[in-house]
Amino acid sequence: MTPPARSMTRRGPLAGIVVLDLTHALSGPYCTMLLAEMGARVIKVEQPPGGDMGRLYPPLVDGEPEFFNAVNHGKESLLADLADPADRPLLYAIADRADVLVENFRPGVLDGWGLGFDELRRRNPALVYASITGFGQTGPEAWEGAYDVVIQAESGLMSVTGFPDGPPVLTGTSIADYLSGMNAFGAISAALVQSRTSGVGSRVDIAMFDSLLAILGAHVFGYLAAGVEPQRAGNTNPLATPFDIYEAADGAVAVCAPTDSGFATLSAWLGRPELVRDPRFVDPAARVAHRDELTREIEAALAGLTRDEAVEQLQRAGIPAGRVRTVPEAIESAQAHERRMVLEVEGSRLRYPGHALHLDTVDDDARRPRAAGLGEHTEALRSEFLGGT
Amino acid sequence: MTPPARSMTRRGPLAGIVVLDLTHALSGPYCTMLLAEMGARVIKVEQPPGGDMGRLYPPLVDGEPEFFNAVNHGKESLLADLADPADRPLLYAIADRADVLVENFRPGVLDGWGLGFDELRRRNPALVYASITGFGQTGPEAWEGAYDVVIQAESGLMSVTGFPDGPPVLTGTSIADYLSGMNAFGAISAALVQSRTSGVGSRVDIAMFDSLLAILGAHVFGYLAAGVEPQRAGNTNPLATPFDIYEAADGAVAVCAPTDSGFATLSAWLGRPELVRDPRFVDPAARVAHRDELTREIEAALAGLTRDEAVEQLQRAGIPAGRVRTVPEAIESAQAHERRMVLEVEGSRLRYPGHALHLDTVDDDARRPRAAGLGEHTEALRSEFLGGT
Repeated sequence: MTPPARSMTRRGPLAGIVVLDLTHALSGPYCTMLLAEMGARVIKVEQPPGGDMGRLYPPLVDGEPEFFNAVNHGKESLLADLADPADRPLLYAIADRADVLVENFRPGVLDGWGLGFDELRRRNPALVYASITGFGQTGPEAWEGAYDVVIQAESGLMSVTGFPDGPPVLTGTSIADYLSGMNAFGAISAALVQSRTSGVGSRVDIAMFDSLLAILGAHVFGYLAAGVEPQRAGNTNPLATPFDIYEAADGAVAVCAPTDSGFATLSAWLGRPELVRDPRFVDPAARVAHRDELTREIEAALAGLTRDEAVEQLQRAGIPAGRVRTVPEAIESAQAHERRMVLEVEGSRLRYPGHALHLDTVDDDARRPRAAGLGEHTEALRSEFLGGT
Repeated sequence: MTPPARSMTRRGPLAGIVVLDLTHALSGPYCTMLLAEMGARVIKVEQPPGGDMGRLYPPLVDGEPEFFNAVNHGKESLLADLADPADRPLLYAIADRADVLVENFRPGVLDGWGLGFDELRRRNPALVYASITGFGQTGPEAWEGAYDVVIQAESGLMSVTGFPDGPPVLTGTSIADYLSGMNAFGAISAALVQSRTSGVGSRVDIAMFDSLLAILGAHVFGYLAAGVEPQRAGNTNPLATPFDIYEAADGAVAVCAPTDSGFATLSAWLGRPELVRDPRFVDPAARVAHRDELTREIEAALAGLTRDEAVEQLQRAGIPAGRVRTVPEAIESAQAHERRMVLEVEGSRLRYPGHALHLDTVDDDARRPRAAGLGEHTEALRSEFLGGT
């Protein structure tokens, strides 16, 4: 039997790395998809009868699941029951030869199935064993269940998104899932530097909660430094302006010229070079204090331009600016296609988003395979790891 | 002279890795801070006269810059002029012995200073050379300047955040900066697995634009699969409910019970087990179609409970739930402290957020050193790399 595994891996810096993937849904599969994209061989274990629940998520394209393909392409599928002792010899055989294990069950679940960290570390001391959970393996909330929206709420991110006179707002994507997957990918890769050079494995413990708390930026700096209570600021930057969103003739644009030199350039572009001597706008603090008046000056100029015209002219003048675009406008842009942010599947109408890990040691193509069918590699993997079915 | 460098590094899987850090502001320094946290030695080059502009950002704590400390602790500071040929021998000497170089100038800037990828790769073929930019090293928008708000606008993220009857909304943190720093960290770590085992370096090209496009999730899946135009959905999940934000007696909570079994559990907790047979709520599609009526049922029960009571009871019942908390509530929570999400500085009142990379091969302490003073290690580094001043 030809092992299909080798042919599924891509050229990349993680070539030769074997990943035992016990993940489902989004955060874990996103992590192992990134490992596969970097050249690792990923063996995804799916539970009978239906496998990863992500196979059922809409939308479908000619019967193929878009979401599941987007985060599971390039992996082998092994149908095995993690809770069934009959499947344990195969799982141990793979774990013993794997470099990495990734899982996103609640804390303790895998211990009950003989696949916990202590047991597998004992069998394979070089293993990088990575867990992704809502709140981590430690602490009083470790046992609590979480979805993305729970973490956006509990982390405080919602409380600083939105307008001062409106409610807290959810960020419009599953950011805690993606960030925890990205953090797991980074931590696993760092741990592999050590395990591949010294044979010492790591226990990696990634929490969706930590992943959002770590990036709250100015809000948490202001609070920790000086007890400042964070406020929602809508589409303005409370510390600097112009650094906001402005209305042009056919939509909104972001314009960034907060420094004195940047503001001088912007004032010249506005045809209002005298603004730099106006006491209301003479320095950064004055501009923040007179934000609304400055916004009116800027929008008076932008009213005669389309978004595209404004951004083109501002960027040519050296002022960072951008259109408030729809997702289709962004994803179908020439820049997005050039950056391989739209991937295609041979022989299918499936298209899904690329990732941001561009390296010259990875192939720069826009084609990917279909995600494996449920259990497609079960027999080949049994043969390879147990020496025959 | 005692080299101060070794004593600044932490225990971690990147011990022994040397990073030449040519970054400033947020995205790049966040990346190299993560490398330092994982045990790498990071030599941060700062330009005269004032060094990284981040040293000037508010707030200050007893004269020490909070933001700068939060993303630059654990690094050595070398004052050197990247544009001055007189400083080039020192920079080359470090680059020749470094494992990693990270920079976040616009494309081409470092080429003009003799520090571009081609030159340094020729000198040191194992070097992992990483660049972080707004739009990447390639494509029609590569030359354009960007700050976080520009990328939130251009990526489409703003367009899917907010309420259907309101404007696009900025996510309340510099998410494109943080995500690109995290992606650079992950890509560099993966590249190090290869360079440390085979001597082959990588060119890493991370864009803030790609970093947001990659995580738009359901919006981009729906568009790429079926041409569905993404819509802002406020604080609801357009595909499932209950998976939304609800009002309790003293604030809002997130409640997730979208499956039939989850909804049965929730209905029992509400004291309304008959809801599972109500034609309006009998299956997932019916619940989405009658979302407002279901919200009224849930909020009728939550009105008699505080956020804390509701979340405690729901989690005990097995239903993922969380409070909509402020940033101070989140960062001062027992869970956040247990997870080392608040770091402290010996002999200072500085506190800043931790990161999400928890590994047992890294020290689990809440103390960090102050960030180095501007040029604090210049003489020691000259001595070490040029053999005397």
